[in-house]
Amino acid sequence: MSEKKHLRDDVIATDEMAHGVGVDTHVVDDVRLAVAQRNAGAVEKTLDDLDPADAADVVEQLSAHETQAAARLAPDAFGGDVLAELSDDALEDVVESLNPRQIADAINDMEMDDAVQLVEELDKDFRAQVLQQLAPDIRNLLEAGLKFEEDSAGRLMQRDFVTAPQFWTTRQLIDHVRLSPNDSLPDVFYEVYIVTPAFHPVGSVALSALLRADRDTPLADIMTGLRAVVTPQMDQEDVAYLFEKYDLPSAPVVDHEGRLTGMIMIDDIVEVLQEEHTEDILALAGVNDAGLADTVLETVRSRAPWLLINLVTAILASAVIASFSPVISKIVALAVLAPIVASMGGNAGTQGLAVAVRAIASRDITSANVRRIILREIMTGLINGLIFAVIIGPIAWLWFDSVLISVVIGAAMLINLLIAGLAGILVPLGLKRFGADPAVASSVFVTTATDVVGFFVFLGLATLVLL
Amino acid sequence: MSEKKHLRDDVIATDEMAHGVGVDTHVVDDVRLAVAQRNAGAVEKTLDDLDPADAADVVEQLSAHETQAAARLAPDAFGGDVLAELSDDALEDVVESLNPRQIADAINDMEMDDAVQLVEELDKDFRAQVLQQLAPDIRNLLEAGLKFEEDSAGRLMQRDFVTAPQFWTTRQLIDHVRLSPNDSLPDVFYEVYIVTPAFHPVGSVALSALLRADRDTPLADIMTGLRAVVTPQMDQEDVAYLFEKYDLPSAPVVDHEGRLTGMIMIDDIVEVLQEEHTEDILALAGVNDAGLADTVLETVRSRAPWLLINLVTAILASAVIASFSPVISKIVALAVLAPIVASMGGNAGTQGLAVAVRAIASRDITSANVRRIILREIMTGLINGLIFAVIIGPIAWLWFDSVLISVVIGAAMLINLLIAGLAGILVPLGLKRFGADPAVASSVFVTTATDVVGFFVFLGLATLVLL
Repeated sequence: MSEKKHLRDDVIATDEMAHGVGVDTHVVDDVRLAVAQRNAGAVEKTLDDLDPADAADVVEQLSAHETQAAARLAPDAFGGDVLAELSDDALEDVVESLNPRQIADAINDMEMDDAVQLVEELDKDFRAQVLQQLAPDIRNLLEAGLKFEEDSAGRLMQRDFVTAPQFWTTRQLIDHVRLSPNDSLPDVFYEVYIVTPAFHPVGSVALSALLRADRDTPLADIMTGLRAVVTPQMDQEDVAYLFEKYDLPSAPVVDHEGRLTGMIMIDDIVEVLQEEHTEDILALAGVNDAGLADTVLETVRSRAPWLLINLVTAILASAVIASFSPVISKIVALAVLAPIVASMGGNAGTQGLAVAVRAIASRDITSANVRRIILREIMTGLINGLIFAVIIGPIAWLWFDSVLISVVIGAAMLINLLIAGLAGILVPLGLKRFGADPAVASSVFVTTATDVVGFFVFLGLATLVLL
Repeated sequence: MSEKKHLRDDVIATDEMAHGVGVDTHVVDDVRLAVAQRNAGAVEKTLDDLDPADAADVVEQLSAHETQAAARLAPDAFGGDVLAELSDDALEDVVESLNPRQIADAINDMEMDDAVQLVEELDKDFRAQVLQQLAPDIRNLLEAGLKFEEDSAGRLMQRDFVTAPQFWTTRQLIDHVRLSPNDSLPDVFYEVYIVTPAFHPVGSVALSALLRADRDTPLADIMTGLRAVVTPQMDQEDVAYLFEKYDLPSAPVVDHEGRLTGMIMIDDIVEVLQEEHTEDILALAGVNDAGLADTVLETVRSRAPWLLINLVTAILASAVIASFSPVISKIVALAVLAPIVASMGGNAGTQGLAVAVRAIASRDITSANVRRIILREIMTGLINGLIFAVIIGPIAWLWFDSVLISVVIGAAMLINLLIAGLAGILVPLGLKRFGADPAVASSVFVTTATDVVGFFVFLGLATLVLL
């Protein structure tokens, strides 16, 4: 943590901070100008004067090109404290512009989880050069970290933590912490893990409980049982769920023999939550990946594939319309009204889908309530179908002066909203069951269903009734 | 924290926990059965044997009706520790079934922020009865808490925290904590705030730094400047942003005179992030609010209003089609192809919208980069438009054997994807500028634009070129 600029004892400083939510765009402009003028000193000074988290925010505002230029000009402004705070995109741009020695220096200042994230952004050859610059023990830990899968708990854990045997008193633990060399302790920690002689964690002592206790109290008396233990293979979403559910400030990670091997901190989990949040929203909208510093071509590449899939499904829906060309050429009103039925179905399906995706992500849908929820979605589709059948019927009647068209669109609306209700819940549940991410591709399946059914039922009923 | 069942020193217990992500559905079934049999003892025992967070998860799996019955049968199983963990929906169902005395008992066991959240769920008259059962000091704090706006920092803060003057040594602070009566301290805390004689916070000391320091070190030497200070009026999203950016475990809250008045903890922020996440996804999909325990009628009520708005916009788009009835009745192919243009526009617009909504929420779009991002979205729309014009043109040609239709749909696709790119970024930015939530209603505006433009441009060009 930085102490710069924050130690004034007055209310104004407090007010400034309280209202300073967001990035100071003047600072961004300063950096941008300094980069354009190739003024290395100004780039370095401007970034160095900021809290590392603020410096990272400023860098994230730059374009990829500007970030690379800034890192080349003022590599010293991109130390481990700043790199640890950067988004993946910005990090990639920065490391491309640093040399192996500079990156190794930064890594030596970072927690292992942040260092692994950094090294992961490097090309294979470049990565080897960086690893060569590191002390063997750090290199080994980094290589071990890289072996864990992306998005696994192993990637989130740091290797520094504090342990104590159960039979110690609080005095012994406090002395142990005070006398440990600083680099053997994590920068910050909120609890101490109680371990057996075989190094299996059996409980934890919150630092606030430790401080409060009498000095002769055995740790066994103030320790609480572990509410969650993480393995390195666990998915980061599952880990986040445990933190959220049990209000954990940190969690122990154990290896396959149950021995304590790492610790995950809440601030890494907050990042995971934000990452998963972005992923869910983008997946539902059909975007593969998005960084604000992305170029136009990267942006096109992340969106065009899903647009192509949408084109295929749209052509499928149009083929349904085409098969009813004879009736449409006689009654143009059908071409006018059909998109309404399809659009309402798509919207209703998306509503159910969004609710289901969130409920699945927060583990609220289980075998204990899934039947009730499916039934509820079907009933909701039915009732909304009835409501909008009753609304659209008279409108169609007034518009085209035909009772039959009115009846046909009402019936089609009812059926399509029922299908929308079904698809909105069954598609994400089905994807989940097959091990897929329920947010990815759900929209395509649901809207394809509601488009095809909407056009087919409306035009089909019209053919039956009107011809 | 509960120590039940977790103190065995063996790997198996660890393994069980590591894999126990999610709710044990057998326990849900047990509670459900006990409720159906009106077996109060079994309901109480089953829930009491669980960690409060697990008990809350089990209750959230029940239907509203079952939850109410469980709370009436076994009110003692719904103490403050469980109520603090319940979702708003489940909490509402539970408190409806408890009497004022039972609720007051629960409140006495809760942190102030959780208690405020509970009291908020109560009807006015019932709330007054509950408040009467409380000690005057707790009642006053609760009433003060209720005066803060929903979703403000004031609602998140607890009133217990630990402070020390700057001139104390670590020994003095540690003694102060050890000798304070337990109920004057928060259950858990991660840092101590350093205050001036006027009670203005000027820094904080992490407990891990406190433990590590020599006993005669003045606190001034180990304190770090405050990276963020919160006011009770701040929006909870802004508070969450500060926690995320600066990796905070807790943050001090100051009143209008800058005096320390409360503390916000990271676990409340994790809840805020999840809440905001759900809100964003539901808002983008056009759902007002959603709880899994909601009845069918509540679900219909949360979705029908947006479907009604969608109906109006769909009719608007259909009116555009209707205005081209003469040309459609001559060339039915136009009715077949028009929905493709509209659908592609809707999808492309939604992609840009999702990216923009996330970037705005994480404060990544500022005046420093907004021009670049708008330009990027326009260019992306243009390039995707070119790509899909080139794809759909030949398809339309092969399908309907008409070069003119092929040219018309290609041009319409290009224009509509360009409009989609513009709408996808400008609509959320515009809503944000007018102080509205960029997620709410964005979809409606964007898809209305792409539907209307898609139909109008395609059918209009067709009229010009083909007739």
